[in-house]
Amino acid sequence: MQKQLLVDMDGVLADVYSHLINLEFKETGLKMTHQSLEGKLEEEAFPSFNKLVRSKGFFRTPPVMKDSVEGLNYLNNKYKVLIVSSATEFPNSLNEKQAWLNEHFPFITWKQMIFCGSKDSISGDIMIDDHPKNLSTFNGKRIIFSQLHNVHVADSSYERVSDWKRIMEIL
Amino acid sequence: MQKQLLVDMDGVLADVYSHLINLEFKETGLKMTHQSLEGKLEEEAFPSFNKLVRSKGFFRTPPVMKDSVEGLNYLNNKYKVLIVSSATEFPNSLNEKQAWLNEHFPFITWKQMIFCGSKDSISGDIMIDDHPKNLSTFNGKRIIFSQLHNVHVADSSYERVSDWKRIMEIL
Repeated sequence: MQKQLLVDMDGVLADVYSHLINLEFKETGLKMTHQSLEGKLEEEAFPSFNKLVRSKGFFRTPPVMKDSVEGLNYLNNKYKVLIVSSATEFPNSLNEKQAWLNEHFPFITWKQMIFCGSKDSISGDIMIDDHPKNLSTFNGKRIIFSQLHNVHVADSSYERVSDWKRIMEIL
Repeated sequence: MQKQLLVDMDGVLADVYSHLINLEFKETGLKMTHQSLEGKLEEEAFPSFNKLVRSKGFFRTPPVMKDSVEGLNYLNNKYKVLIVSSATEFPNSLNEKQAWLNEHFPFITWKQMIFCGSKDSISGDIMIDDHPKNLSTFNGKRIIFSQLHNVHVADSSYERVSDWKRIMEIL
């Protein structure tokens, strides 16, 4: 039987940092540096975070993470893939997230999508996520996708990957 | 520790039959009888089902199931409640479902909501649902909420309840 693989959206499939850096600059003129973002959650690092993530279109328009279309397609042929995204915190993000997935990852069906508030009741064999809060309660193999906020996280129960090429090597 | 209780929306919290009967009559003039609906899935029984569920506002406006506000509030104080709703099949239903929940069940937080395609990866101790397809793969206690489509279902692994008063008696 195929193993069940849970794949996060923001910070794994969607390049939320590039999106926030662009939008923060448009909003305030601030040019966020990687140094200023390292080790901080996005809501701590970006002055306009709360406004931006609640603005219409935010979750409809992030760039796709490099190599993620090829990578997810590869995984989708090998595993039972579920896309699991924290979404209910942000009103109106749900439809935008589904439309974004349908546009960029058309091989993912509606049966493979879960939009939730907390991920701790979703079961699977492998989880790929950028947030320790999601990985820490997961019982299967935990893969942390490197993003600026998690660079200082050193938990030996996580296998760290820095890009989708690496995911395709190990899975 | 509180037991985790998964509660379905359509046919448990939302009175989808009343909604469909009203809308089918407006759409085609057909008055659906209970007899014509018994034992059939909604998509088989209502001629306009596919049009209606894809129309704007359908999931924003169903009536609330009798006694469900009192009942869910009771359960929410006693269990770890998660609302688990099949939603991704119907484009644009996600935002409407969340807004409907926020309006009628304001004590349910965004952390307690899961909108998905399939429920077979959501874990919990108890599930209340009207669809055998959701209950049959669930490992905990299975409670079937009587609705016209499931009246002939006789599975001894399900405890049948006909209304929310009964749920409050047994849980």
